[in-house]
Amino acid sequence: MITPLKAWNELDYKGTENLIEHILSGGVHGLFILGTTGEGTNLSYELRHEFIQLACRQINGRVPVLVGITDTSLTESIKLSEHAAACGADAVVAAPPYYFTANQNELLSYYESLADKISLPLFLYNMPSHTKVSFEPETVKTLSEHSNITGFKDSSGDIIYFQKVTTLLKDAGDFSIFVGPEEILMHALLSRGHGGVNGGANLFPELYVAMYNAVMGKDFERMQILQKLILEISSNLYTIGDSPVKYLQGLKCALSVTGLCSDELTAPFEAFKGAEKEKVEKLLQNINIGEVLS
Amino acid sequence: MITPLKAWNELDYKGTENLIEHILSGGVHGLFILGTTGEGTNLSYELRHEFIQLACRQINGRVPVLVGITDTSLTESIKLSEHAAACGADAVVAAPPYYFTANQNELLSYYESLADKISLPLFLYNMPSHTKVSFEPETVKTLSEHSNITGFKDSSGDIIYFQKVTTLLKDAGDFSIFVGPEEILMHALLSRGHGGVNGGANLFPELYVAMYNAVMGKDFERMQILQKLILEISSNLYTIGDSPVKYLQGLKCALSVTGLCSDELTAPFEAFKGAEKEKVEKLLQNINIGEVLS
Amino acid sequence: MITPLKAWNELDYKGTENLIEHILSGGVHGLFILGTTGEGTNLSYELRHEFIQLACRQINGRVPVLVGITDTSLTESIKLSEHAAACGADAVVAAPPYYFTANQNELLSYYESLADKISLPLFLYNMPSHTKVSFEPETVKTLSEHSNITGFKDSSGDIIYFQKVTTLLKDAGDFSIFVGPEEILMHALLSRGHGGVNGGANLFPELYVAMYNAVMGKDFERMQILQKLILEISSNLYTIGDSPVKYLQGLKCALSVTGLCSDELTAPFEAFKGAEKEKVEKLLQNINIGEVLS
Amino acid sequence: MITPLKAWNELDYKGTENLIEHILSGGVHGLFILGTTGEGTNLSYELRHEFIQLACRQINGRVPVLVGITDTSLTESIKLSEHAAACGADAVVAAPPYYFTANQNELLSYYESLADKISLPLFLYNMPSHTKVSFEPETVKTLSEHSNITGFKDSSGDIIYFQKVTTLLKDAGDFSIFVGPEEILMHALLSRGHGGVNGGANLFPELYVAMYNAVMGKDFERMQILQKLILEISSNLYTIGDSPVKYLQGLKCALSVTGLCSDELTAPFEAFKGAEKEKVEKLLQNINIGEVLS
Repeated sequence: MITPLKAWNELDYKGTENLIEHILSGGVHGLFILGTTGEGTNLSYELRHEFIQLACRQINGRVPVLVGITDTSLTESIKLSEHAAACGADAVVAAPPYYFTANQNELLSYYESLADKISLPLFLYNMPSHTKVSFEPETVKTLSEHSNITGFKDSSGDIIYFQKVTTLLKDAGDFSIFVGPEEILMHALLSRGHGGVNGGANLFPELYVAMYNAVMGKDFERMQILQKLILEISSNLYTIGDSPVKYLQGLKCALSVTGLCSDELTAPFEAFKGAEKEKVEKLLQNINIGEVLS
Repeated sequence: MITPLKAWNELDYKGTENLIEHILSGGVHGLFILGTTGEGTNLSYELRHEFIQLACRQINGRVPVLVGITDTSLTESIKLSEHAAACGADAVVAAPPYYFTANQNELLSYYESLADKISLPLFLYNMPSHTKVSFEPETVKTLSEHSNITGFKDSSGDIIYFQKVTTLLKDAGDFSIFVGPEEILMHALLSRGHGGVNGGANLFPELYVAMYNAVMGKDFERMQILQKLILEISSNLYTIGDSPVKYLQGLKCALSVTGLCSDELTAPFEAFKGAEKEKVEKLLQNINIGEVLS
Repeated sequence: MITPLKAWNELDYKGTENLIEHILSGGVHGLFILGTTGEGTNLSYELRHEFIQLACRQINGRVPVLVGITDTSLTESIKLSEHAAACGADAVVAAPPYYFTANQNELLSYYESLADKISLPLFLYNMPSHTKVSFEPETVKTLSEHSNITGFKDSSGDIIYFQKVTTLLKDAGDFSIFVGPEEILMHALLSRGHGGVNGGANLFPELYVAMYNAVMGKDFERMQILQKLILEISSNLYTIGDSPVKYLQGLKCALSVTGLCSDELTAPFEAFKGAEKEKVEKLLQNINIGEVLS
Repeated sequence: MITPLKAWNELDYKGTENLIEHILSGGVHGLFILGTTGEGTNLSYELRHEFIQLACRQINGRVPVLVGITDTSLTESIKLSEHAAACGADAVVAAPPYYFTANQNELLSYYESLADKISLPLFLYNMPSHTKVSFEPETVKTLSEHSNITGFKDSSGDIIYFQKVTTLLKDAGDFSIFVGPEEILMHALLSRGHGGVNGGANLFPELYVAMYNAVMGKDFERMQILQKLILEISSNLYTIGDSPVKYLQGLKCALSVTGLCSDELTAPFEAFKGAEKEKVEKLLQNINIGEVLS
């Protein structure tokens, strides 16, 4: 879930409520806040704390809430986790510390230490393009044996890697393995993945739920139709402009155009204006999710 | 300056005092705290605030104090800067936000916004291996024209790049350009650089001061002798073990062996023990700075 | 297809015949020689010429033969192509020149020039890990419109990229799009890919043919069973030792153990011996392709 | 030395003679042909053989001739080396094979094998941006002990690395260590380097000879003046356009503008025309080497 903002340092309360209701109405099985798409690392701690409370209250137990606590300081991650627990969240998610990189032994030590010190279950989050380090499959396996580590989200975009992990953990009981990029949700679900945590689900939650159901139901024709739509959104909405966060700019702009919430981003990133916004508007007119899903 | 720690989340007060006195006695022209070597990003905000106060009090105006405020959240960088101002620091230093990368325009916007919002003068900090982005020389030039941006520290290790910056900014008045890696302090000073911010100066401050003086005095023989020593320290002390922070482990271990302060690191990194520590001890016995410098 | 060698600079004639018969008996739809797995770039031109002749004669029109002509010198690529034509090959395959990298315009110019100057149809070959450059999907599209450019092989391993290409070229008539890494053969076929050029097919050609048939037949259960086997081979056979070519060492060793051909590699790479070879032997005893495929 | 071409596959004989005389008149201590700047890998073998003969004949023993034999095929490197020996060249230079990368042990094996099989002395050539692999300093040291390996050229552009090599080989007798990028010729000479192999010396050979003499003579003032000029050339002449070979385009264009030789490049690269050529013309008018050097 993105974090709706009225300004770079100000939450959009009404937009948050709207967006949560919108996403839940799409039938998602859970909600992940303050992840990469949620710009967690770029928000002040005050806003992060506030947003956790706001989201948990609005969701109110209807689906599990996972909270991103990724931070370069272990202490701050622990604080965020305890706040999330107090607000009623169900689990926390942490990518590796991302200023200094850690080797695999240091990753083991970091996550074991974190999992020991917090009360909520912990998900590992693989995001090498942002953290400069990738979990080796063996590291995920070792950590999966910790009683308080319950899942893994992989946003590497690399299905070969993803399969190595799912193969190695095929006997890991109820350890959950999710995939990030929506472009490979289908492929990941066909490769022992348990689900997706997909940014596009802010906008069209029912689409990714439909893909999940299509793969579970082995409905090959439907998978192809849905995948076509998923790629159409991705290749058009996430490719406007030249910012490293153009994916997020496109997504937030689309949510704003549909009236769900504001389109502001955290500093130093800027919302689309003018020609870029018009492109998004046209795109949205051309995408007919309803027809496909009905 | 490193941050002396008694444990991963606890400052070493006495060690901090010792170390500051040791560094100042070496004749350095200023002190940079909470940078990369200072593990700034890995400390809790509470400890960062405390350390700023502690260091400023101990230095007490004897040399300028520069404070690292690098953060992924602009709000938190501003808060750190205001605290540093209140404690009497002279300037702040910020590397680019390092979870999301920014393009050059976004860097411009980020630094202009930051410089506008804080009271202390701001130094740019180029650290591409950690932040995944490098300032283009033109970006440094544009930012150097902001009245509250007063310098640039380059830790890229790339002398070709460094020269591009110094050449482009040759008429930039009193804008300061410093180099990070001590192995190229000599080369940077010979290429219009104004000084070095070198981790090794925690241990042997007089050595890097001597190199500065040798280059200023165009003393070629002495430069060669000092450089030999600088490389000897670097190639032996910073290369033990296989952690991405082995440089810091070696440095903190050496400071501990010489009795200046503790050797603990922030999570998830560990201090040297056993065989690694013995290596450092032997190394220190073999390095005779005094003989060379006298 | 690998290139069977008796020594780093000597072809294994008998092994070549054996291997070709073995692969063809597995039901493959074509054969690609002198590609990356064929160590084309590391063979002398004399051996490349000789091998083209040898392979074409042995295959004798039973399936189409594609010949790798990847080279840093355009002249040498053209010569190889004309020799391949003379020997009766059906098409040639060229990765971008790989010492200097070319930008997308230069790639366009390179491939248009090459396609104009040769008589055989040309396949583009994307192999960014070896050539340091990737075809942008738009570049593939533009080149697909050249009358003598008839296909694209993607060995990037990136299914997100692969889908961008197949989506952009969905109306490109009989332009063929193949995938390299066998670990994603299934995923690529499910994403509009037309086939695979998979190294593992040297050893178990029927396995990859079976996967092709399973996907074409929309047989989900069989896809899962075959994929399990494909990953088992990949994760065990291609991961022994620490050479950048361990994939090739494992493959050639397995072919040697099964008695099909020698295991020598081009300089500077060495065949497995001792413990590494024993690992391969044990692996082959544990893999029961026949049971799964029957 | 660049390779003067009348067309992408045709030597410029007269230009070659002119250019060799021009370079020798600048006082260089040797000539390196068919290196990266010489586009060796992109020329057909026929042209490489022809150019070796042409250059050796023209130089006629006045300075040592080093010939680039970098190739992905060991056999072809050996052939080039034997041809160079027959033409009277003094040594050969080989970068690592550059399609497959080799690990350090494989590099050792490759270079020992090559040095054993050729009659001319061999220089190692470090060019990681093109070959994807860098010699570890220990690998250079081990190879330096081979009786037929006599030097090392480092084009990494990394002075920290360069110093590691020169420090490790400080007792390696008459093993020669040269630096590639002219922007750090001064720095390399100040760090135990023995000389430079600089592309700019095609155009202004006397400038780089003057820098060599200035450093040898410990003439700081002159070093600074010459370095200013070297950087001016580099930052203006090598930065036009957006090709990965813009350095080479700028250099060949300048040689053509000054009337020394043609400006054609090997496929797929194109010579400057129009606005780009005009930029080069203006640049050359503004650079006054003579005034500085006199």
